Amino acid sequence: MTPQSCHTIEVCFSPALYPGAFTKPGYIAVVVDILRASTTICAAFEAGVEKIIPVPDLETALEYKNKGYLVAAEEDGIKPAFADFGNSAFEFMNSEVRGKTIVHCTTNGTKAISLIQNADSIAIGSFVNLTALSEWLVKQDKNIFILCSGWKNRFSLEDAFFAGALVEKLGSEKEYTIPCDSANAALVLWKSGRNDMLKFVDKALHRLRLKKLGLDNVLHYTFAPDSGRIIPVVSEGIIRGL
Amino acid sequence: MTPQSCHTIEVCFSPALYPGAFTKPGYIAVVVDILRASTTICAAFEAGVEKIIPVPDLETALEYKNKGYLVAAEEDGIKPAFADFGNSAFEFMNSEVRGKTIVHCTTNGTKAISLIQNADSIAIGSFVNLTALSEWLVKQDKNIFILCSGWKNRFSLEDAFFAGALVEKLGSEKEYTIPCDSANAALVLWKSGRNDMLKFVDKALHRLRLKKLGLDNVLHYTFAPDSGRIIPVVSEGIIRGL
Repeated sequence: MTPQSCHTIEVCFSPALYPGAFTKPGYIAVVVDILRASTTICAAFEAGVEKIIPVPDLETALEYKNKGYLVAAEEDGIKPAFADFGNSAFEFMNSEVRGKTIVHCTTNGTKAISLIQNADSIAIGSFVNLTALSEWLVKQDKNIFILCSGWKNRFSLEDAFFAGALVEKLGSEKEYTIPCDSANAALVLWKSGRNDMLKFVDKALHRLRLKKLGLDNVLHYTFAPDSGRIIPVVSEGIIRGL
Repeated sequence: MTPQSCHTIEVCFSPALYPGAFTKPGYIAVVVDILRASTTICAAFEAGVEKIIPVPDLETALEYKNKGYLVAAEEDGIKPAFADFGNSAFEFMNSEVRGKTIVHCTTNGTKAISLIQNADSIAIGSFVNLTALSEWLVKQDKNIFILCSGWKNRFSLEDAFFAGALVEKLGSEKEYTIPCDSANAALVLWKSGRNDMLKFVDKALHRLRLKKLGLDNVLHYTFAPDSGRIIPVVSEGIIRGL
């Protein structure tokens, strides 16, 4: 067994399960909220955003707005009136955001980021940066902990599906130990749906919720792997692109 | 749409996710702890046990022992010295238990039972009674909520796998609505592993834990569907077989 093979991959399906998660020391956390915060954050950096300040609630977002910041926010999928952007990846695909700092509030994703404790780094993962993220994680040579944001603390199919894609990608580049039923289950979900991703996630509850709100136009982008290469990393409360 | 088709099936992967679970009123809860409390409870009734009193901790179990009750208990998979039985299904397969009341304490299963609130009935599910349970549930004509006990609040592969088997069985007999990502994911896990169940659950963390403790001799029994027909049901704190 090479020293590298001692590193572990763990998956946690919901922030509500985080207190019981057994993250080994010396780990990198990957926060996942496929529909939609982590996808949107990746899209924003690809569009040239310089920094993202994640905030946990609309009150804080409004305070930043009143100080002159650009604000992206949603609550239960809806953009509040004071916000400049909602939480759709498409809203960042314009030149207006290049070089800007965005304050970002979402129902689930931001809260998951704020939960992570004692990680050496916190990265943001989505299908947009799947391969680049995997390559970067392998280079870090550390244990990996993937936290799915879920929906109001519940299990989300699309987050688990992405976790499985990342577990497989990591395992194809380096030998990891997987001491975690969630990671194995995520891998089964990914292998089961990878050949027709949109059909697979069609059942996801949040997908139906977005459809009802008329917000599901970014699904092809969301589930197209590797349209970008930037790794958003959280440091001292600020997200920057690597 | 017939009136029956309005009933829902929901799955909750861990007691830690229960507070966020959205159980509809008028539901039957099915508590699952495949390795091993729910399998053992089913086995005990098949062996002729009359009543099981589930208790949440060893202190309470010891109090019952001192009053003269037979006690089955485990803590982290190990049988405490004062207990008459551990938590293996095989320990109940003898004539000594026929007609007896057993006090039953387990790490996860009993705690999951005590969490359930406002259910019309609470049943215990395992592969032992899969078909009988499904037929009984369909007859009740109510919403169904499947609570996986997990392991120390974490997701357990074998519990989710069984939940998927039950979701499929129910769906083959009656039209249910599945407004729940967990139920859909469980179904994928079940379909992925059904043709070689022991190989599928071989990865399960708790299976490895049991193997280390030399307690995995009941796996063939645990994953053999339909060796029994009795539905254990909890009423006023006591489990009786239907």
